Amino acid sequence: MAGKKIATGVVGGSGYSGGELLRLLLQHPAVEIAWVTSRGDKQLEKVHRNLWGSGLRFTTEEAAAPCDVVFLCMPSRESMTRAGQYVTQGSKVIDLGSDFRLKDSALFEQVYGAKHTSWDLVREAPYGATELHRDAIRSARLVANPGCFAYATILGLAPLVRAGLVDLDRIIVDALSGTSGAGAEPSVPTHHSEIGHSAFPYNVIGHRHTAEIEQELTGVAGAKATIHFTPYYAPFARGILSSCHGFLTRRASRADVLELYLEFYRGEYFVRILDMEKEQVSWQYLPYPSVASVAGSNFVHIGADVDEQRGRVVVFSALDNLGKGAAGSAIQNMNCMLGLPEETGLGGVGLHP
Amino acid sequence: MAGKKIATGVVGGSGYSGGELLRLLLQHPAVEIAWVTSRGDKQLEKVHRNLWGSGLRFTTEEAAAPCDVVFLCMPSRESMTRAGQYVTQGSKVIDLGSDFRLKDSALFEQVYGAKHTSWDLVREAPYGATELHRDAIRSARLVANPGCFAYATILGLAPLVRAGLVDLDRIIVDALSGTSGAGAEPSVPTHHSEIGHSAFPYNVIGHRHTAEIEQELTGVAGAKATIHFTPYYAPFARGILSSCHGFLTRRASRADVLELYLEFYRGEYFVRILDMEKEQVSWQYLPYPSVASVAGSNFVHIGADVDEQRGRVVVFSALDNLGKGAAGSAIQNMNCMLGLPEETGLGGVGLHP
Amino acid sequence: MAGKKIATGVVGGSGYSGGELLRLLLQHPAVEIAWVTSRGDKQLEKVHRNLWGSGLRFTTEEAAAPCDVVFLCMPSRESMTRAGQYVTQGSKVIDLGSDFRLKDSALFEQVYGAKHTSWDLVREAPYGATELHRDAIRSARLVANPGCFAYATILGLAPLVRAGLVDLDRIIVDALSGTSGAGAEPSVPTHHSEIGHSAFPYNVIGHRHTAEIEQELTGVAGAKATIHFTPYYAPFARGILSSCHGFLTRRASRADVLELYLEFYRGEYFVRILDMEKEQVSWQYLPYPSVASVAGSNFVHIGADVDEQRGRVVVFSALDNLGKGAAGSAIQNMNCMLGLPEETGLGGVGLHP
Amino acid sequence: MAGKKIATGVVGGSGYSGGELLRLLLQHPAVEIAWVTSRGDKQLEKVHRNLWGSGLRFTTEEAAAPCDVVFLCMPSRESMTRAGQYVTQGSKVIDLGSDFRLKDSALFEQVYGAKHTSWDLVREAPYGATELHRDAIRSARLVANPGCFAYATILGLAPLVRAGLVDLDRIIVDALSGTSGAGAEPSVPTHHSEIGHSAFPYNVIGHRHTAEIEQELTGVAGAKATIHFTPYYAPFARGILSSCHGFLTRRASRADVLELYLEFYRGEYFVRILDMEKEQVSWQYLPYPSVASVAGSNFVHIGADVDEQRGRVVVFSALDNLGKGAAGSAIQNMNCMLGLPEETGLGGVGLHP
Repeated sequence: MAGKKIATGVVGGSGYSGGELLRLLLQHPAVEIAWVTSRGDKQLEKVHRNLWGSGLRFTTEEAAAPCDVVFLCMPSRESMTRAGQYVTQGSKVIDLGSDFRLKDSALFEQVYGAKHTSWDLVREAPYGATELHRDAIRSARLVANPGCFAYATILGLAPLVRAGLVDLDRIIVDALSGTSGAGAEPSVPTHHSEIGHSAFPYNVIGHRHTAEIEQELTGVAGAKATIHFTPYYAPFARGILSSCHGFLTRRASRADVLELYLEFYRGEYFVRILDMEKEQVSWQYLPYPSVASVAGSNFVHIGADVDEQRGRVVVFSALDNLGKGAAGSAIQNMNCMLGLPEETGLGGVGLHP
Repeated sequence: MAGKKIATGVVGGSGYSGGELLRLLLQHPAVEIAWVTSRGDKQLEKVHRNLWGSGLRFTTEEAAAPCDVVFLCMPSRESMTRAGQYVTQGSKVIDLGSDFRLKDSALFEQVYGAKHTSWDLVREAPYGATELHRDAIRSARLVANPGCFAYATILGLAPLVRAGLVDLDRIIVDALSGTSGAGAEPSVPTHHSEIGHSAFPYNVIGHRHTAEIEQELTGVAGAKATIHFTPYYAPFARGILSSCHGFLTRRASRADVLELYLEFYRGEYFVRILDMEKEQVSWQYLPYPSVASVAGSNFVHIGADVDEQRGRVVVFSALDNLGKGAAGSAIQNMNCMLGLPEETGLGGVGLHP
Repeated sequence: MAGKKIATGVVGGSGYSGGELLRLLLQHPAVEIAWVTSRGDKQLEKVHRNLWGSGLRFTTEEAAAPCDVVFLCMPSRESMTRAGQYVTQGSKVIDLGSDFRLKDSALFEQVYGAKHTSWDLVREAPYGATELHRDAIRSARLVANPGCFAYATILGLAPLVRAGLVDLDRIIVDALSGTSGAGAEPSVPTHHSEIGHSAFPYNVIGHRHTAEIEQELTGVAGAKATIHFTPYYAPFARGILSSCHGFLTRRASRADVLELYLEFYRGEYFVRILDMEKEQVSWQYLPYPSVASVAGSNFVHIGADVDEQRGRVVVFSALDNLGKGAAGSAIQNMNCMLGLPEETGLGGVGLHP
Repeated sequence: MAGKKIATGVVGGSGYSGGELLRLLLQHPAVEIAWVTSRGDKQLEKVHRNLWGSGLRFTTEEAAAPCDVVFLCMPSRESMTRAGQYVTQGSKVIDLGSDFRLKDSALFEQVYGAKHTSWDLVREAPYGATELHRDAIRSARLVANPGCFAYATILGLAPLVRAGLVDLDRIIVDALSGTSGAGAEPSVPTHHSEIGHSAFPYNVIGHRHTAEIEQELTGVAGAKATIHFTPYYAPFARGILSSCHGFLTRRASRADVLELYLEFYRGEYFVRILDMEKEQVSWQYLPYPSVASVAGSNFVHIGADVDEQRGRVVVFSALDNLGKGAAGSAIQNMNCMLGLPEETGLGGVGLHP
């Protein structure tokens, strides 16, 4: 690891987001991994078998010294104290957890069932949806990286609610997640025999990401947005497909909606609008996103359609929950904070198949 | 095959619905298979490898003589003439296709792009949702078996719309299907490499099942019901999970909704309401349906939840698209038409895992 | 449950084999379930969601009174004492565990790392491969049901070794199992994210089933058979595909081998030989077994091929590890012990797809 | 695309190997894509959805002018003439097809059923297993890239046969492939409903890769090696797990074998030996390769075990059939031919999960 490289540390490297961070940091041309911590005494190369032979090791907490950039991959309510320590010591911090996302303290307490101990830091930490808060992220000491479901849904709905095109009280979102979204800890619902040939909803009412989705879309809309959000697990490892339904407030065609999205995301390298004409499209080449097309990447695929007869618009937003939904966007935010081109080390497209 | 058994014939036995019919007819104690037809010169035991050694053979069209019950598994617009021939000759006919489901001829022409040649038969053929049209089915000569997405959705929504509990103009349905719903014919989207680790929407606007869902739920509601329906394929072979979202017209709790469903489906052997108390439920045992729990069976699992704060109810309806969504309900309807207990030959529960 | 029915009890009903037993017992026309026990305080219908609404409940150990037939689904070394209690009290016992399979006490101690406390019972308990020990099973008080890998492999190799067609020292077996073979307990290797898109070997040397395979095939061959056995998990829930390779001791063609198997298994309802001619077979219809064709059933599919140039024969044996590999064969053995037709309650074929 | 970059062309870019080549070439720092051809009139970004927005287009055959490096992704018997044209015109050519792999013309004719029209080129084209033929590849005009099954198996067995540790007449190989190995063309066996929950053998006798495996291992061994090879498809998209069984010619332990492999592959960046001690290994962290650990990468994972009692060694070799098994090794060979570090543009590790 060359001396001139930016030194990064990862707190909590044994989970799936932490592992993906390591994979991406290893192939980033401008950084080096200074240390990675983990609970317990696991061996890194056994936990992340793709890294066998890399020589990476989990280090002790004592070795987790301040460095240029620190990534926190910690459970809810655990990064709120840790972040402050690193910020105070001069590290730039990107929190992949949920402690700094919500900007309303009463809501935070209701959703997470705890008092926040670092509310000052919450106030200064931009919500890490780069497309919405790029300027604040550039100069931030601490960034609150979005939740995976939240990011897919916010990107899927932002242009619609900004344009006032849908009824803000009746937006319904069904979002499928791959099982890696449930984390690396084995459980009955994510046991292969149970989910391998199945799919099911969970946390149907009040999933925690609802709060951050509503916060951000209310900000974009300039008016209260209510999101009726339901998450599901489906039998693939990576990926989120967020289906966002809205009732039109004025007439619009599919072409209008796609044009709106192309305009809104113009210049965003990682947001790709699937603006295929339906007339040219057969069953072989569907004009909508699919989960697999973005797996392993930092790209978001967005497609849409409009039922003009019934007055509904639906936007589909697909991303990799561990990529753009976690580690990928964390790297993108790091690049942004460091003044690097955002796609540095992130340019690879998803796998096909 | 004993002489006293009811003789059945299957037109179109090489597809997945036809194959499932054969599987169920073979284990039905009161019937025998008189003949099975198929296009082309395929060998039955090679197409349906689970039947290797059964001795079943595809027969020629000439051998497809009238018999006690004839099942039609044919593409759209092909059963409309065939059904009449068998009915005239005295066979009871169950059409697993779509030609006799819609009762509005203008709508039929719009949805299927063709004139109907047997409109008299359409009028007399009950829509084969047994729970809604049992009396008519008992005395019918021809039954129009429901579409798989439609049946799941109708069963998921009927109690809600009957009770006037939701805004009839803004019902949103996202429905996941296993790939067997796309049929036995290979295609790019259902090629394993493409869908095996993915999920995607298709026929997003105007899927044909929308029309029959609206027809039946309008009937149940006694007022026009508009269904905003979107189908998806997900990487399992069998099963549909229909997520039905409605905006409440009056306050109701999850318990109220579950009670409503228990009451509505009281006595329906194949409809099971997942009325687990949420308080007792951990992540290990989710109180909602999952696709796999009904795969291989004629059962429907229905669960629900209510977001009292935001005024939304969601009902989840899961069934096997080839079972209750096709061949299973066809057998149930046959039993009904023949005066047999409806669960005859259908009692087996789904597989776990 | 009618009074005349045969009363059955299940010890250990919360695992996958136990659940499959319940599914099969419920649809068996001659038996009733008297009781089912489970460790812990789980609720049966939550554990086995396919049985929601069945009314089945786990009972206490005290309620597990002797009845006509008792099935033991217990970990290694736990059924050895339990079996004797039931046998003494007059129940017929079928042990789905491994305690009574090995007939050499030194080998038992080496493989399972424990002294056996009921060696007399081991001696009288036939190994429950019905096709090989039918007469002994008919009159047995206790049957040692085969291991899933073992049964697939024994059925795949018995005709070959009986005929002396292969070198008994160099039989190599690679066997793929669905993840349900690892049981219902979550673990890292069977976590969906880990295995869902993967496959891997485990217990590569000395898998315990090797001992029972060698015991039985040595018995069939009348000479010591050495089996080089390696197990794998692959990403499907149910099914075993055992690939059995042998070096020919004399010239033989594929037709010769298939004829040998047809003859050996003549009259065995549940053993189906895939004797398709290769000449007629295209890529569309492969002349070998596949896992899915027998999933959910008690059938075994066996196919074969011969490399005449290199002198190798390979036999593929596919069965459902929870069906013919556990609960299905247990029911078949029960039928045999009770003098019922062996296919009673077991006739259903596998699902396609 | 910068003017100084090495210009590359891809003949046959619509298949899975071609698509993977494009993905890798796009992220390679030293090359640019000059053109990509495809049969038919497909649109590149619809075929390879991961590349949506890349601007890549399929070009006409006329545009496929000679350039620095040409990759051929063509069916058997089609690249034999095409390769010569490019070589003559000064392009370096890497053939991902099978036309230049076999060095015995009689064997070629027997295996591929055709006369070869460019036998001179066959003679000069090294077999592209970089680890075995690096020097020849460095100076080659044309490289015959290995088949995916062949490469996994050759790497898995080369150290064993070189060391004379196994009986060369009785090596048995069972190799699982992901469905992408069957190509992008839909078919019944790779239809998701058929294979999604299954696994099956195919081309059981005489799979074409057998010939190149035997050729290369005979070369490594310095004596005729006979490989008894059987391929399977399993329900994952990417990856090969080749299980190579040999009978020991002298005593050896697992540690001996792992040491042999570490030594043989010392310095090979992409070949990783899983030399975990078994004593430290629990069920949670298995000491053998798994398919997923290398998916999306150019790495090969090799593990091994020895049954000292029965005299068998088994080596497991896992790679991505589209990566190291096709496009990845093609890029590695290109780097080698161009004098670039072999890992240029290929350094990324596989995904976890």
